[in-house]
Amino acid sequence: MTDSLRDLVRQLDQFARDRDWQQFHSPKNLASALVVEAGELLEHFQWLTEQQSREFGPEKRNAVAAELADVLLYLVQLATALGIDPVAAAQAKLKLNELKYPVDRARGNSKKYDEL
Amino acid sequence: MTDSLRDLVRQLDQFARDRDWQQFHSPKNLASALVVEAGELLEHFQWLTEQQSREFGPEKRNAVAAELADVLLYLVQLATALGIDPVAAAQAKLKLNELKYPVDRARGNSKKYDEL
Amino acid sequence: MTDSLRDLVRQLDQFARDRDWQQFHSPKNLASALVVEAGELLEHFQWLTEQQSREFGPEKRNAVAAELADVLLYLVQLATALGIDPVAAAQAKLKLNELKYPVDRARGNSKKYDEL
Amino acid sequence: MTDSLRDLVRQLDQFARDRDWQQFHSPKNLASALVVEAGELLEHFQWLTEQQSREFGPEKRNAVAAELADVLLYLVQLATALGIDPVAAAQAKLKLNELKYPVDRARGNSKKYDEL
Repeated sequence: MTDSLRDLVRQLDQFARDRDWQQFHSPKNLASALVVEAGELLEHFQWLTEQQSREFGPEKRNAVAAELADVLLYLVQLATALGIDPVAAAQAKLKLNELKYPVDRARGNSKKYDEL
Repeated sequence: MTDSLRDLVRQLDQFARDRDWQQFHSPKNLASALVVEAGELLEHFQWLTEQQSREFGPEKRNAVAAELADVLLYLVQLATALGIDPVAAAQAKLKLNELKYPVDRARGNSKKYDEL
Repeated sequence: MTDSLRDLVRQLDQFARDRDWQQFHSPKNLASALVVEAGELLEHFQWLTEQQSREFGPEKRNAVAAELADVLLYLVQLATALGIDPVAAAQAKLKLNELKYPVDRARGNSKKYDEL
Repeated sequence: MTDSLRDLVRQLDQFARDRDWQQFHSPKNLASALVVEAGELLEHFQWLTEQQSREFGPEKRNAVAAELADVLLYLVQLATALGIDPVAAAQAKLKLNELKYPVDRARGNSKKYDEL
């Protein structure tokens, strides 16, 4: 993992200990919390057109940044709880995606890999 | 942002360009994709007890790591599309959470900040 | 509740008993399953434009109908587990929405009620 | 569909017309809104144990009923927009589930059908 994500890990761990919150932080609960925050993130987009979503002003960007942050905080806590390095996992998944979506077949096409 | 997340940003950008996928990657669509992956992550936990979720074997951990990776990949793409530094945003949100959940009131308590 | 939803309730209860699945059907787990299915529903839309989503062919409609069905099945099971009549609750919520979104202020406007 | 769901359909259609909201109600957006409400529903459970979720008092039940209602309202609107009868779809899916999860193999087992 990277240094600043390691910082986040350390701070989140301390934050939860100070508040005696580890009892609530089963991986099951952390996964639920991550989904809930992802929903709050999506709420900012639900009635917008795709074009409007490409033209955010600073106020909207800040609101979305706060929700993105919440998702990342739970992602890091869940990864830590399960002994997963999220960046390494993402690197591995990207390599796998290169195989699942070869350029010649996937180019300009949004179909899922099992429909290519 | 950190170096390895910057690497991910660069690789994801190249991955999408090679496949002419930027047309599908409006922030609105990326936010939807993030939620969809978060749901796939939660699916691994939905019938488990909290205790079982604390006792994952390597096979289950790898399956969850792949889903966590998918969430992180979309989180990074969405942040990039909106000009947001997700780690900086997470750091700022953690500071805000320290104010919303003061230790003396939040200790041992899972209530939301507006119910403390 | 209505007759055919009552039928569904009865059939779902029998379905779970036959399989000794009530042990997994805590409201917490049913709520998670509902979200997971909602994500699978959204997956059919994530890369489509709004216009494409208005022009579904029969194959796509059937795929979406199956996911909608999954969401409704968990919604009914969760409502039953908590002693909630979902149609009555929906009627009540619609009345409340009429107050939260008065026509003169909400017309043509997608803002949330606390921003009107 | 059933009478009271038909009532809901009619009322929701009128509600949206009065507010000139059909422009926002592409199936893509309705599916997003459904997921967002499902997340708000799950938020009520995220830090609870399964046992606590089986022991709701009236206040919590009412809060959850309001979220369940929101999910049902969007489910009905999405079904209507796509010409889907949600109860018929649920009946059909339940029959399919009986085949995917035969009692002798699925009894007492929470595994997904492709792992049975």
